[in-house]
Amino acid sequence: MNYHILTLFPDMVMDGLNTSIIGRAKEKGLLFIEAVNIRDFTQNKHNRVDDYPYGGGAGMVIQAQPVYDAYQHVEKKIGRKPRVLYMTPQGRQFTQSMAEELAREEDLVFLCGHYEGIDQRVLEEIVTDYVSIGDYVLTGGELPAMVMIDAISRLLEDVLHNEASAEFETFHDNLLEYPQYSRPEIWRDKQVPPVLLSGHHANIEKWRREQSIMLTVDHRPDLIEQAVLSKKERIFLEKYVEEKEKRLQQT
Amino acid sequence: MNYHILTLFPDMVMDGLNTSIIGRAKEKGLLFIEAVNIRDFTQNKHNRVDDYPYGGGAGMVIQAQPVYDAYQHVEKKIGRKPRVLYMTPQGRQFTQSMAEELAREEDLVFLCGHYEGIDQRVLEEIVTDYVSIGDYVLTGGELPAMVMIDAISRLLEDVLHNEASAEFETFHDNLLEYPQYSRPEIWRDKQVPPVLLSGHHANIEKWRREQSIMLTVDHRPDLIEQAVLSKKERIFLEKYVEEKEKRLQQT
Repeated sequence: MNYHILTLFPDMVMDGLNTSIIGRAKEKGLLFIEAVNIRDFTQNKHNRVDDYPYGGGAGMVIQAQPVYDAYQHVEKKIGRKPRVLYMTPQGRQFTQSMAEELAREEDLVFLCGHYEGIDQRVLEEIVTDYVSIGDYVLTGGELPAMVMIDAISRLLEDVLHNEASAEFETFHDNLLEYPQYSRPEIWRDKQVPPVLLSGHHANIEKWRREQSIMLTVDHRPDLIEQAVLSKKERIFLEKYVEEKEKRLQQT
Repeated sequence: MNYHILTLFPDMVMDGLNTSIIGRAKEKGLLFIEAVNIRDFTQNKHNRVDDYPYGGGAGMVIQAQPVYDAYQHVEKKIGRKPRVLYMTPQGRQFTQSMAEELAREEDLVFLCGHYEGIDQRVLEEIVTDYVSIGDYVLTGGELPAMVMIDAISRLLEDVLHNEASAEFETFHDNLLEYPQYSRPEIWRDKQVPPVLLSGHHANIEKWRREQSIMLTVDHRPDLIEQAVLSKKERIFLEKYVEEKEKRLQQT
């Protein structure tokens, strides 16, 4: 996978993606990340990339030409039209399934906006996907690009190898992850749940699944309806919900 | 505002928050960011912070003790119990209104997980808020913490001063932002919409509001119901929706 990030802050994205799992995957050549500085493509002597918005209003708008030329530089290098993602709160919500879809691409271009945005005409010319990582306003597109690259990269073959389980998925079977415990057995008078020390794998698996079901009911009831459960687990779920409702009525 | 980030990757968060608007606000003393390295609080000679999970399974779990001691270090320094945010997909969804609420705090602690998570017992001991920035899985809590700090900081007084309009909000009146244009007037045969060059402020404002309404209907119909509209704008909206439905039926 090759990521090409069109940005005014190349250091920020490169530093932020040098760490831990993604950094090691880069070193191993499992993925390639380049930041293309939009400012390198200005045609004016002051290296300015922005100007006032037509029609007035506060703030500055990034101009079409340097963005377009930075994009052209990438397109020429890879020899074909790649998908170009523009990070904006108006975009389609980024989700785990979108990450899976994007992980199948060979090249991805991320266009990072700043200030009051980018001239509409160049967006219409080059952008293929408008994407939002959530309903909040950020100062620029760099952090959203880094978030998406992180989510996509951990799905690539060999990236998570030996670092974390590829099987482990927070949304595995549409359930939240069960609680984790490590040494020591007793910490500040708090004991590890005895079943985890029992060595009885079937019981451990059962306990973890039930914890996941309870956590999902409590924190993400919207997920539980699509949860993939066994018959026994479905009975456990119904009982838990019933008892929870009883408790709520009593208070 | 003082941010304290408990992390295994202090360089990543500090580098990522040094740029642009947030970096300048730091320099001006409008906000304070420190990364507290959890690894500095280990009590074993190998500086290890993680160990195998009880009950088996892939990956490693961050142990309770170093996390707790790193947190204690912050609590002692500020002299009271702050809000402690743990970034996890099981958390409450981070939104613009949560950012506004958190912007009123004096201190915020961000606890960044990694690997298969953090020992449940220390989470129960110190975490006050479980927060998710979206329905996707990341390799760690650092990027979510940076995203939240960025969203919260731009709401602090004086941070956006002269850099971007505080009035400008993507979700202002629950509408998406209108398209922006800057020089030149014609770029690759594409003209700036003439109204923006007219100098007629009332018409410009009307055009922008109508663009926002259309964009919101097209891309985020879930927002339009709570949109704050004038009587005339509501009529415009109804007409646009009607015509859109007609067009869809014809195709």
